[in-house]
Amino acid sequence: MSQIYDRVALIGLGLIASSMFWAMKRGGLVGEVTGYARSAETRDTARRIGLCDRVCDSAAEAVEGADLVVLCVPVGVMGAVAAEIAPMLKPGATVTDVGSVKRHVIEAVSPHLPDNVFFIAGHPLAGTEHSGPESGFAELFDNRWCLLVPVDGTPEEPVERLRHLWEGMGSNVETMDADHHDLVLAVTSHAPHLIAYTMVGVADDLRRVTDSEVIKYSAAGFRDFTRIAASDPTMWRDVFLTNKDATLEILGRFTEELFALQRAIRTGDGDHLHDYFTRTRAIRRSIIEAGQDTDAPNFGRSHQVTK
Amino acid sequence: MSQIYDRVALIGLGLIASSMFWAMKRGGLVGEVTGYARSAETRDTARRIGLCDRVCDSAAEAVEGADLVVLCVPVGVMGAVAAEIAPMLKPGATVTDVGSVKRHVIEAVSPHLPDNVFFIAGHPLAGTEHSGPESGFAELFDNRWCLLVPVDGTPEEPVERLRHLWEGMGSNVETMDADHHDLVLAVTSHAPHLIAYTMVGVADDLRRVTDSEVIKYSAAGFRDFTRIAASDPTMWRDVFLTNKDATLEILGRFTEELFALQRAIRTGDGDHLHDYFTRTRAIRRSIIEAGQDTDAPNFGRSHQVTK
Repeated sequence: MSQIYDRVALIGLGLIASSMFWAMKRGGLVGEVTGYARSAETRDTARRIGLCDRVCDSAAEAVEGADLVVLCVPVGVMGAVAAEIAPMLKPGATVTDVGSVKRHVIEAVSPHLPDNVFFIAGHPLAGTEHSGPESGFAELFDNRWCLLVPVDGTPEEPVERLRHLWEGMGSNVETMDADHHDLVLAVTSHAPHLIAYTMVGVADDLRRVTDSEVIKYSAAGFRDFTRIAASDPTMWRDVFLTNKDATLEILGRFTEELFALQRAIRTGDGDHLHDYFTRTRAIRRSIIEAGQDTDAPNFGRSHQVTK
Repeated sequence: MSQIYDRVALIGLGLIASSMFWAMKRGGLVGEVTGYARSAETRDTARRIGLCDRVCDSAAEAVEGADLVVLCVPVGVMGAVAAEIAPMLKPGATVTDVGSVKRHVIEAVSPHLPDNVFFIAGHPLAGTEHSGPESGFAELFDNRWCLLVPVDGTPEEPVERLRHLWEGMGSNVETMDADHHDLVLAVTSHAPHLIAYTMVGVADDLRRVTDSEVIKYSAAGFRDFTRIAASDPTMWRDVFLTNKDATLEILGRFTEELFALQRAIRTGDGDHLHDYFTRTRAIRRSIIEAGQDTDAPNFGRSHQVTK
C-alpha cells in the first residue's frame, strides 16, 4: 500500500496517540510521524520507547510540514492547542481530533484554523482504562468504529483519505453529524461512565461496609464498574462539561427508569422486574453477534491466583 | 484428601450447582452426588452431559441419605423446596444454600427443617452472565469468596466441614451474620446489577438512537453494563424482592451522589468532577491487588474479528 500521508503530527501522546502511532507503523500507512506532549516527562518517555519518529519540544515544531495533524488532547484544551498551531499549519493540510465530544470541539477548534486547511473532527470508539504514552498498542482500533464528523463544505477527497487511514489502522468508519454523535455517545459512553463513577464513589463512601469488604467481594458485580471508573479523570471531566445537555438528558431518562424499578421493588411487583430483566438480555446477544464483545463468561477474564 | 461428605444432593441444576459438581469431582472431595431439577428438560440435559452421578426425578429422592443437601434454586422458592425435602432428610445432615440473599433464606428455610439437621446458609460470590446446567465449570470458585452464615447455635463441626468443602472447590471462606451479608451484597452486587439493568433498558428504549447504533458503538463503555444485565431474570427478580431494604438504601445513596454529580455538570464545577473521578481510580487498583480482577486492559478481552 502506498503511504496515505507523508507526514503526520500527533499532538498529545496518551493512549490514543500512542496506539495510532503503532497502528500506522504496523500498516506502513504513513511516512514520518512527529509528536508533541506538553509534559517534558511524557516527551522523555516517548523518546525512550520509540514512540514517534521525532518528538518535538513544541506543538508548532511538530506540525510544521505535516499533511495530517491529529489533536489527541483532552476536549477542554482543543481550542487552545488549535490556536497555538494555526500559524504553522501547511496549506492543504488536514486537521483532525480524537475527542469524545464533537459539537464542542468543532466550535472550539474551527475559528482558529486558516481557510486553507481542512478540519475533519473524529472519534475512535476505542480505549482502555489505562492512560499515558506507554499504554498504547497497535491492535486498539481493530474492528472498532471510528466516527468522522466533517464540517460543512469539506470536500470529499480529504475525508476519504482520513477514512483510509482509519481503515488501515483496523477501524470501521462512519460519518455522522455532530449533534447526533454527541447524543449517541451520551447513551453508549458518557452516561454509563458517570453511572459507573457514581456507583464506585458510593461504595467508597459507605462507612458501614469497610473498604476491604467492598474490594474482597467485588467479583459479585461491582468490579465491572470499577474498570471504566478508572479511566482518565481529566478526559472525563472535560467530556461531561462539554456534552452537558445530551448527558443530562440521558441521565434524566436513567433516573426515571431507576425510580420505576425502585418502586417495583418497594411494592413487590415481581412481574415488572422479570419483564425488564428479560428484555435487557437480548441486547447483550446482539452486541456479541455484532463482534463488539466476547461471549466468553466474565469477558474471558483469567482467574487470578494471587491472594 | 479423604472425602468430606459421602453423599451430596444438589437441588436445582443451574450454573452454580453444575460448577459445584465439577469442582467437587476435580478435587475428589465427595462420594456420590445426586441431583434434581424441577424441569424435565434440565434433568435430561444433566443426564446427557454427565452432570451428577445420579439424576433423580424428585427432590425427596435426591436428598434421601445425603450428608449434605445444597439448595441451588432461586431465592424465592427456597422455602417451598425446604418444606418438600424436610421429611426425607437424614438425621445429622447439613443443609446449605447458594442464594444471594441470606436473611430471607434463613427465615424461609429454617422453620421447615427438623431439629436434627444443621442449616448453614451460604453464598459463593462467583458466577457468570450465563445460566443453566451446561454453563458450569470446575474453576468458577477458584480464588473467589464464599460467605457462610450459620444460624445461632450451630455447632462448630458441621460449619468447619462445609468450609473445607468450599476451600476444596477453590474458595476463600468467611463467616458473617445475615444482615451484614445482605448490606455488603447490596453494595457489591445487588445495586450494581439493578443499575446495569436500568442503563441497558434506557438504551433499548431511546427511540432517537437506533438499536443498531447502541449495539455498534457499545465498545465505548456501554457493553460493560450489558454483561451483568444479561444475568438470569428469575434469580435477580427474587434477589431484589427479598433484599428490599438494603438494596433500596444503597440505591437511595446512589441517587443522591448521582444528583450531586449532575449538578456539578450543570453548573460547570469541573473541580468536583475531577476530584470524584480521581478517588474512584484507587479502588480499581486495590481490587486488582486483591486478586479479584485482571489488570489486562479491557479485562483482557480478545478483539473480535467477526463483523
